[in-house]
Amino acid sequence: MEYVRNAWYVAGWSSEFANDLSAVKILEDNIVIYRTSKGRVIAMEDRCPHRFLPLSMGKLIGDNLQCGYHGVTYNCEGHCVRIPGQKKIQKTLKVRTYPVFEQHDIVWIWMGDKSLADTSEIFDMPQFAQAGWEAHQGDAIHLTSNYLNVAENLVDPAHVSFVHPTTLGSSASEDVPVHFDTSGDAIVAWRWIRDSPPIGFFKEFPGYKTNVDRWHYYYLYPPSIAVIDFGSADSKEQIEENQRHLGTQLFALHFLTPVSSNRTIDRWMHLRNVAVGDETASSKINSMFKVAFAEDKQILEAIQEQEDHLQNQNPVHISIDKGSIAYRRRIADLIKSEAADNSTM
Amino acid sequence: MEYVRNAWYVAGWSSEFANDLSAVKILEDNIVIYRTSKGRVIAMEDRCPHRFLPLSMGKLIGDNLQCGYHGVTYNCEGHCVRIPGQKKIQKTLKVRTYPVFEQHDIVWIWMGDKSLADTSEIFDMPQFAQAGWEAHQGDAIHLTSNYLNVAENLVDPAHVSFVHPTTLGSSASEDVPVHFDTSGDAIVAWRWIRDSPPIGFFKEFPGYKTNVDRWHYYYLYPPSIAVIDFGSADSKEQIEENQRHLGTQLFALHFLTPVSSNRTIDRWMHLRNVAVGDETASSKINSMFKVAFAEDKQILEAIQEQEDHLQNQNPVHISIDKGSIAYRRRIADLIKSEAADNSTM
Amino acid sequence: MEYVRNAWYVAGWSSEFANDLSAVKILEDNIVIYRTSKGRVIAMEDRCPHRFLPLSMGKLIGDNLQCGYHGVTYNCEGHCVRIPGQKKIQKTLKVRTYPVFEQHDIVWIWMGDKSLADTSEIFDMPQFAQAGWEAHQGDAIHLTSNYLNVAENLVDPAHVSFVHPTTLGSSASEDVPVHFDTSGDAIVAWRWIRDSPPIGFFKEFPGYKTNVDRWHYYYLYPPSIAVIDFGSADSKEQIEENQRHLGTQLFALHFLTPVSSNRTIDRWMHLRNVAVGDETASSKINSMFKVAFAEDKQILEAIQEQEDHLQNQNPVHISIDKGSIAYRRRIADLIKSEAADNSTM
Repeated sequence: MEYVRNAWYVAGWSSEFANDLSAVKILEDNIVIYRTSKGRVIAMEDRCPHRFLPLSMGKLIGDNLQCGYHGVTYNCEGHCVRIPGQKKIQKTLKVRTYPVFEQHDIVWIWMGDKSLADTSEIFDMPQFAQAGWEAHQGDAIHLTSNYLNVAENLVDPAHVSFVHPTTLGSSASEDVPVHFDTSGDAIVAWRWIRDSPPIGFFKEFPGYKTNVDRWHYYYLYPPSIAVIDFGSADSKEQIEENQRHLGTQLFALHFLTPVSSNRTIDRWMHLRNVAVGDETASSKINSMFKVAFAEDKQILEAIQEQEDHLQNQNPVHISIDKGSIAYRRRIADLIKSEAADNSTM
Repeated sequence: MEYVRNAWYVAGWSSEFANDLSAVKILEDNIVIYRTSKGRVIAMEDRCPHRFLPLSMGKLIGDNLQCGYHGVTYNCEGHCVRIPGQKKIQKTLKVRTYPVFEQHDIVWIWMGDKSLADTSEIFDMPQFAQAGWEAHQGDAIHLTSNYLNVAENLVDPAHVSFVHPTTLGSSASEDVPVHFDTSGDAIVAWRWIRDSPPIGFFKEFPGYKTNVDRWHYYYLYPPSIAVIDFGSADSKEQIEENQRHLGTQLFALHFLTPVSSNRTIDRWMHLRNVAVGDETASSKINSMFKVAFAEDKQILEAIQEQEDHLQNQNPVHISIDKGSIAYRRRIADLIKSEAADNSTM
Repeated sequence: MEYVRNAWYVAGWSSEFANDLSAVKILEDNIVIYRTSKGRVIAMEDRCPHRFLPLSMGKLIGDNLQCGYHGVTYNCEGHCVRIPGQKKIQKTLKVRTYPVFEQHDIVWIWMGDKSLADTSEIFDMPQFAQAGWEAHQGDAIHLTSNYLNVAENLVDPAHVSFVHPTTLGSSASEDVPVHFDTSGDAIVAWRWIRDSPPIGFFKEFPGYKTNVDRWHYYYLYPPSIAVIDFGSADSKEQIEENQRHLGTQLFALHFLTPVSSNRTIDRWMHLRNVAVGDETASSKINSMFKVAFAEDKQILEAIQEQEDHLQNQNPVHISIDKGSIAYRRRIADLIKSEAADNSTM
């Protein structure tokens, strides 16, 4: 299928890569990733152009990569530097490399036109560096579902009442309307549930006992990053919509890596202003998220299975779909505009 | 593939459905089946038109069915009765329902044009209600084979000598010719094996020790029901062809449910005039049939595997194929006539 | 895919076939093989033309083959000799047979035009019958890879240094150039590694302790037989290229049977002039080869996986590819010439 290629995607957590060879698949490209002896991350097409053996089946000779079949060797720029038994090296023996950037213990990869790769555009949030905030890497969920299905679930507060009744939602929110703003860089969907009992999560952190005002803000940055701002404050404090940092606030970040038309990796982590420095709290929050995201996985894989077999059938839209409709339109526009750019090159 | 849709198929034994959600697949349609609080069986397309989640992954709210993704809810007629967070309900949010009828502990489903569903046409036999007869539900065999292959095996007395030499047939019958009558509602194939030792089955029920006259009558009702009238009588009694009830008679009923182009469920049961009320006999007969039908399953799945890979190759017919040739022609005619009816609507 | 059909392929070792039914697949044809009561090997299309049941699911009645569904029976020439319950036998009930020949405990099968089958063309080597030589059958490796990939690996001395560094090669040979002769019946690739330490194999047989001259000659006979002449001699003896029999010489024979477009069976054996009559040596040599061929299998299956997904992408050739380029051209020519012969028939 077609993807938005001119974008930074997450290749993995920094801890996933070492001075050895890892094979990953992103936007259907097979890629081999390794760190050089000095720790720099290198990403290269995972296929020797000679006889197509995945280079990840070869080995590192210093910082160069040697194919496991006939020893053809490539440097960090993908140029062939050795053909055993042959002196002259053809220029056609060249492997594509991908721009890579590491930030906040995350490895980002640029999948499109290299001349457009700008590391200043990589996703960031000030809270990563602020006192009073804790950043914690969660897990990588492998879903047998297209990334568009996974992403639209992340701009959809309405499903929470039905899919996550014991962790992230409750029946109190079933009929609370959802607001949308589709005009900015991020598509935003949000709602407040005022003056109702705390849900499981906030009963634990920080331990609310009386009614709270609860919010869910979903920011979806096309093509594949979502930030869920999710919190509660004691109802008696009557905080304003823009005073959310005064309550208990948690950002759940989801970095989606489209693997192929029906596989997606969702790497998630969180930033929070509660229980800072408390490792036990981090583990508990992880466990709660794992329960919730396993519930999403079940739904999203079942939908994919239906889509694999349906033909010419479109979903019937309802009012809560504004975010996902805007998101899918944005993706279609991005793909169209990349195709137009390519054809004028 | 194309199926005969204007027909009653077996959705399951009555015992298979309760006041919860079952997912079944019939003629490639995904269907969710449940009983209402009063026990009525409801069958509905197993897919929410909003985001395509199977409704069988949702839950019953009273007798209504609520989708597990966003809580969209449908009543027993498939009409949407609730969209959480939204007041107006679009008419396009509608789920297809299927006519259903329950009789003799069997749930029947009509897969075609609802206006043609006539419950008086559902398969029945007087012996279900007669004294001196015992009805016993057997099992459901899942075959990886097209239902046409399974059905033609059920109008084919000739295979019995080779596929079931220890249970339903014997080498005595190998060269006994088969008779056919393809003029009525059912396609009939039959033969008598006169004055030969009883086969395994009748040695046990009722315990014949000397030679018997044995018959096999195969009635195949297109598209998918077979009745095998199968019995023996002491050869000394010299019964006529139409006096079979005087001997030991057993009707094996096969209700075929086409699942997809290469999967079929064969639910089988029997009616018998021997060992009436004897539970141990029922179990023993079941065990014998299970051995025999596992033999058929092996053959029918091997044939399907060949057919999956063969192209433009037709079977070479021999004289015992008259029943299956007539059956396949009848099916083709039914599908053609349904297509013609649909195009003039 | 298209294959060279007018050729003798190995159907199996003689020990693989007995007086019962074996199902094999060669060039995508399903074939049933059995020995008659007198030990003759019969090979026949593995499908009854009546209802397509594999004949390998039937049984032998004397030397004839009876189908397991309706008892239709074929003789060793594939002619129908019995239809139970029917007197006249249609001529269309006929099963294709394949010419078969047994030699040196190997069963050969001719897959093409029967009128061209000439057993004098079957592969042979004088050493099978000479004193001072030991022939030993190894194993059958099942590879999920096209036979062309497997074959070209057998005319490729250069991979040995990288794929088999501990058994058949060593880094001493990495840059030693490869010679080619593509003019004869066999495509030949060879190289000598003079005056270097013995590799694992020859350290063991016969136990060289000082430097040796080592050679690898790869003879590839299209479509599917390879002979690897592989040996060493003490460097002090300074043997000529044509005096290899004076050293320790071992012929590894590979008989490739193309199963389908991505499956191949490689039956390998060896002939040697060292440790003749020594069973323990045979076992040890087998174990070494098993390690090496498992290394090839991993490479060849990974390449196949890439080829299954690549489109319109050709390998970039380097100088060591001369043998495989010639081989693939030879195969293409053979297929083309068979197609031309068929169209003028």
